[in-house]
Amino acid sequence: MIKAAVVGVGYWGPNIIRNFATNPSIRVEFCADLNQERLDYIRNIYPYIKTTTDYKDIVKNQQIDLIAICTPVYTHYEIAKAALLSGKHVLIEKPMTSKSFQAEELINIAEQKNLKIFVDHTFIFTDSVKKIKEIIDSEELGDLYYFDSVRINLGLFQHDINVLWDLAPHDISIMYYLLNKMPESVVATGSAHLGNGIEDVAYMTIFYTDNLIAHIHTNWLSPVKIRQTLIAGSKKMIVWDDNQPSEKVRIYNKGIDILQDEKDIYRTLIQYRTGDMYAPKLDGIEALTRETQNIVNSIMENRKPLVDGFAGWMVVKVLEAADQSIKNRGKEIKIEDL
Amino acid sequence: MIKAAVVGVGYWGPNIIRNFATNPSIRVEFCADLNQERLDYIRNIYPYIKTTTDYKDIVKNQQIDLIAICTPVYTHYEIAKAALLSGKHVLIEKPMTSKSFQAEELINIAEQKNLKIFVDHTFIFTDSVKKIKEIIDSEELGDLYYFDSVRINLGLFQHDINVLWDLAPHDISIMYYLLNKMPESVVATGSAHLGNGIEDVAYMTIFYTDNLIAHIHTNWLSPVKIRQTLIAGSKKMIVWDDNQPSEKVRIYNKGIDILQDEKDIYRTLIQYRTGDMYAPKLDGIEALTRETQNIVNSIMENRKPLVDGFAGWMVVKVLEAADQSIKNRGKEIKIEDL
Amino acid sequence: MIKAAVVGVGYWGPNIIRNFATNPSIRVEFCADLNQERLDYIRNIYPYIKTTTDYKDIVKNQQIDLIAICTPVYTHYEIAKAALLSGKHVLIEKPMTSKSFQAEELINIAEQKNLKIFVDHTFIFTDSVKKIKEIIDSEELGDLYYFDSVRINLGLFQHDINVLWDLAPHDISIMYYLLNKMPESVVATGSAHLGNGIEDVAYMTIFYTDNLIAHIHTNWLSPVKIRQTLIAGSKKMIVWDDNQPSEKVRIYNKGIDILQDEKDIYRTLIQYRTGDMYAPKLDGIEALTRETQNIVNSIMENRKPLVDGFAGWMVVKVLEAADQSIKNRGKEIKIEDL
Amino acid sequence: MIKAAVVGVGYWGPNIIRNFATNPSIRVEFCADLNQERLDYIRNIYPYIKTTTDYKDIVKNQQIDLIAICTPVYTHYEIAKAALLSGKHVLIEKPMTSKSFQAEELINIAEQKNLKIFVDHTFIFTDSVKKIKEIIDSEELGDLYYFDSVRINLGLFQHDINVLWDLAPHDISIMYYLLNKMPESVVATGSAHLGNGIEDVAYMTIFYTDNLIAHIHTNWLSPVKIRQTLIAGSKKMIVWDDNQPSEKVRIYNKGIDILQDEKDIYRTLIQYRTGDMYAPKLDGIEALTRETQNIVNSIMENRKPLVDGFAGWMVVKVLEAADQSIKNRGKEIKIEDL
Repeated sequence: MIKAAVVGVGYWGPNIIRNFATNPSIRVEFCADLNQERLDYIRNIYPYIKTTTDYKDIVKNQQIDLIAICTPVYTHYEIAKAALLSGKHVLIEKPMTSKSFQAEELINIAEQKNLKIFVDHTFIFTDSVKKIKEIIDSEELGDLYYFDSVRINLGLFQHDINVLWDLAPHDISIMYYLLNKMPESVVATGSAHLGNGIEDVAYMTIFYTDNLIAHIHTNWLSPVKIRQTLIAGSKKMIVWDDNQPSEKVRIYNKGIDILQDEKDIYRTLIQYRTGDMYAPKLDGIEALTRETQNIVNSIMENRKPLVDGFAGWMVVKVLEAADQSIKNRGKEIKIEDL
Repeated sequence: MIKAAVVGVGYWGPNIIRNFATNPSIRVEFCADLNQERLDYIRNIYPYIKTTTDYKDIVKNQQIDLIAICTPVYTHYEIAKAALLSGKHVLIEKPMTSKSFQAEELINIAEQKNLKIFVDHTFIFTDSVKKIKEIIDSEELGDLYYFDSVRINLGLFQHDINVLWDLAPHDISIMYYLLNKMPESVVATGSAHLGNGIEDVAYMTIFYTDNLIAHIHTNWLSPVKIRQTLIAGSKKMIVWDDNQPSEKVRIYNKGIDILQDEKDIYRTLIQYRTGDMYAPKLDGIEALTRETQNIVNSIMENRKPLVDGFAGWMVVKVLEAADQSIKNRGKEIKIEDL
Repeated sequence: MIKAAVVGVGYWGPNIIRNFATNPSIRVEFCADLNQERLDYIRNIYPYIKTTTDYKDIVKNQQIDLIAICTPVYTHYEIAKAALLSGKHVLIEKPMTSKSFQAEELINIAEQKNLKIFVDHTFIFTDSVKKIKEIIDSEELGDLYYFDSVRINLGLFQHDINVLWDLAPHDISIMYYLLNKMPESVVATGSAHLGNGIEDVAYMTIFYTDNLIAHIHTNWLSPVKIRQTLIAGSKKMIVWDDNQPSEKVRIYNKGIDILQDEKDIYRTLIQYRTGDMYAPKLDGIEALTRETQNIVNSIMENRKPLVDGFAGWMVVKVLEAADQSIKNRGKEIKIEDL
Repeated sequence: MIKAAVVGVGYWGPNIIRNFATNPSIRVEFCADLNQERLDYIRNIYPYIKTTTDYKDIVKNQQIDLIAICTPVYTHYEIAKAALLSGKHVLIEKPMTSKSFQAEELINIAEQKNLKIFVDHTFIFTDSVKKIKEIIDSEELGDLYYFDSVRINLGLFQHDINVLWDLAPHDISIMYYLLNKMPESVVATGSAHLGNGIEDVAYMTIFYTDNLIAHIHTNWLSPVKIRQTLIAGSKKMIVWDDNQPSEKVRIYNKGIDILQDEKDIYRTLIQYRTGDMYAPKLDGIEALTRETQNIVNSIMENRKPLVDGFAGWMVVKVLEAADQSIKNRGKEIKIEDL
């Protein structure tokens, strides 16, 4: 039985508690929050959970094996460092840290102390992403051409991070998981309309090798909610519409044929090809259930987490590049130069 | 009765002929195409139309008042110049020219000779754009925040221009018409996958004054066809989905309220507001019908065309900036510096 | 504080408990179920709730004010009667009873003992139905022409009732609430494919006075889930698509104009008229929250429930007519003749 | 070369002319209409076509091989009979005749004179129906359970026939083609709201042997246009949404498993099963192109038409039953009793 604690029980923390409760191998025993009302709320539902307004009480507690950190981004580093130094595994809400060097330090500490860092990129554990991963790994798509994601809605505005830091971690982590490739550079643009200098609309292009290109549109000011990702290869193309109640993932047998022109050998003809579409059945397992099981297995069997500190660091690195590019109005920022 | 001729009767030219045929004040009398088969096709349907394989026969013809130019982009300048110099009005397929200096020269010639240049930005004449223009002009939307357009489908690949030059003229011209504002600078990215160095996927951000930002996603390699534009202001927001069979334009009474925090005067609170949505009835008049009437009126009553040479030039200018930005991987290109 | 008990904690009962828990004026204190596992499940979540496998323990309990009956339909009558006779208000899952005479008897007992019967027609409490009711009451629609509802999906098959008894109570109760009119007669057809003689696909037409007609399509064997209702009047028409994540209710300014033919006074011309569509903002209050409040208010202030025994009886009456019509292959069954 | 004539060039006739023009083996040479303006319109487009206001001129003309009859329904019989008696094949707009005995007489005359009757059930020739036919014939669906069709929109109101006679011929003919089964009986209901006694909303259930049931909802007063057909079998289910721009036909690998209960041999358990969905590529050939080719081949090679007089008669027979059922408020009408 893994004994867990949760620091921060505002919006996301209670989900972690509820979810851990459904797995018999892990159990939340302690919670911290600066706000006593939130702690009372938790106690009301889970009378067996201890609470404190000082997260250091949790860090000092010898019984706790894992600390889940669900606080504002700028506090992740301090809390995670304290947790690791006192010998606890950590599960960190996304984005992992405010600065990539902080993520690097956490990774180093965890390595030295043989502890696990889990970063809460929940989408990696959805049945949609799992199915898309299978399809890409089977090389059914052919050469990968692009990844295009739109993640827009009205609100919820954040006060400390812009719309890219809020929404793009989902897409950056999904792309990294699916494509298994390091981004090379980033071009980003955005605009702030609310008088606080925080971008509420932002666009990011990510360049990879081999002409593979990715693009993410994030927006807090959209009248409609869109969660749509296109992934195209030379042979097949995927549309993943996460708003659909069913058939979220659709594979189109569409692609490009590049032919030699018979009349003119210096010229190629490009034809597009269309065929059937199919929507595979998804397994219907909830993302948080799968994520919890992965955490349990990683700790108990000392296995590499599906989403580890490196994945978390990579997302922060891309976000740092995006910030710098936005400030320089689209200047290309190479990831390695950061 | 305006006597018109059409140079180029491949894909778009026949539409011009068919449409002019429905307006009693204009009539196509002459056609040119390098391909005799296309001319035979036209003769078969319209036995009264004269044809030639040399467009100069049309330029020299004293009867013709207006020449519609529906040839590949790189030929627009030469043909339009010859037409204007011999005293004919011109209707030019979009984009107007390959280079902005060519557009400028055509504008100057037309001015000196008191002739009209019409550029065929057909979308300006749709009932959807007309309705959106009314809404924006009524200031119902409040301060404008962004314009976001997605124009993607599979094919048709062009051999001489990239996907931005093919599809973005629609959006650039619509934005210019709706916002009535000059773009300040452009950031664009893209990728070419077909071995010919021509971008088939491209993204463009356009900066305006006052934090207004526009973004266009064009793509020849999308498994699904999307034609969706979001236009958001501080008070209301528009979604225009041109693929819908009805209710193409929807106005959302959604927006942002920026409040002073009562407890902390240095802090603002941002709230979003949601209300009704409505889809106004559109008038159902076809774009080409309206465009033809505008051409007829402009010539007969010597009035400024709704889409004139300046609008055509502006689109080319933005496309030039986008090309330069793509080549420099997202470098911001100022329109005035070109 | 109203003290409540729940009989039957399989599928729906737990929702009642969860929901009552959010209202400070009512509290579930006792539960019954034949299945001890279900009782253990409830105890685990709500340690303060007493449980029993014999519902008569609840009936006898002097502390309980209201019994919610969430058991199979054929048991409703017996349990509700026992509850009423021992002086408790009842909330009965839909359909109220298996036979209309049973519903009548329950209504009589409740009246004599001055108790409330609530029937759990939850849809009446949704914000969609509330909004549609407002629109119809405002007479915005003009003369009512028809009500058409499609309520289809795959499964869940019932063992004791057919698809009409399972799904149509929603629509019959909604219609009754919205139109405030008694059905005159019913024509129904259906088919049973699963070897058990229970209809899994069924259609029902309901005739009202004044040419108003209603139709309900229920189906357990549909590959897609549809929840769509059309309500048309002479002036406006409503589409309620309950599967939409937003804009569930849309009002179309479309209708019919009947004109006198000027040339031929014996002939009328029918024209249709199309205008704007709008989707009003819904208040976002959950149906169960509103329903609980209505129960609380009705008991505490001795007011007529929004959905009382009469509404429950009327639904059963229509279902009985439908059953008889199905057995007689579409024979019209008058409600009053039953 | 088949020489054709068209009687009635109002709404549908011009489509026939345009379409025959694309097939080199058939050619329209003569047209009749009571309205001289319509004839002038045709002459303007097709100067080579002769016209007359008296269809008998066409019947008498020795050159004509085939007469297409696109006039109001009540005139079909007279014109078709005259055409057949003078030795001409006929193509008759749907529904074939006002009365089934008229259709029978036409069939008899055609047989005696060795002539073809084509009935213009155009949907039979669409790529969607062709694909669905292939799927059903492959027995992929298992045992057929039901056919459910919704065909509703606003207008166009007819003056001589009700909404069932206007819209249901499509579905009745499609069902007959797909299922290859004679209907046994019909139950129909409807309502007339426009003061002329003509039903504008109508529902029809069609019973077949083996518990197969079909249902058609037709409506001239719907604010939205729906063209959706569900066809379900024990193994797979089809959704055909003719309004979709692509993926019109979707096959769901969903169905029912009927299992013996291990604990209770007298009880069966019903489980539903869900799997992938796929949307097969359709061939993209236009219905009218295919229909014209079928007409040409049938005449030239003396082959049975895909849609012959019998198919036309069967549709009329079902409509007669529906009319009688509507008048008797849902009374079941057996087809053989008519």
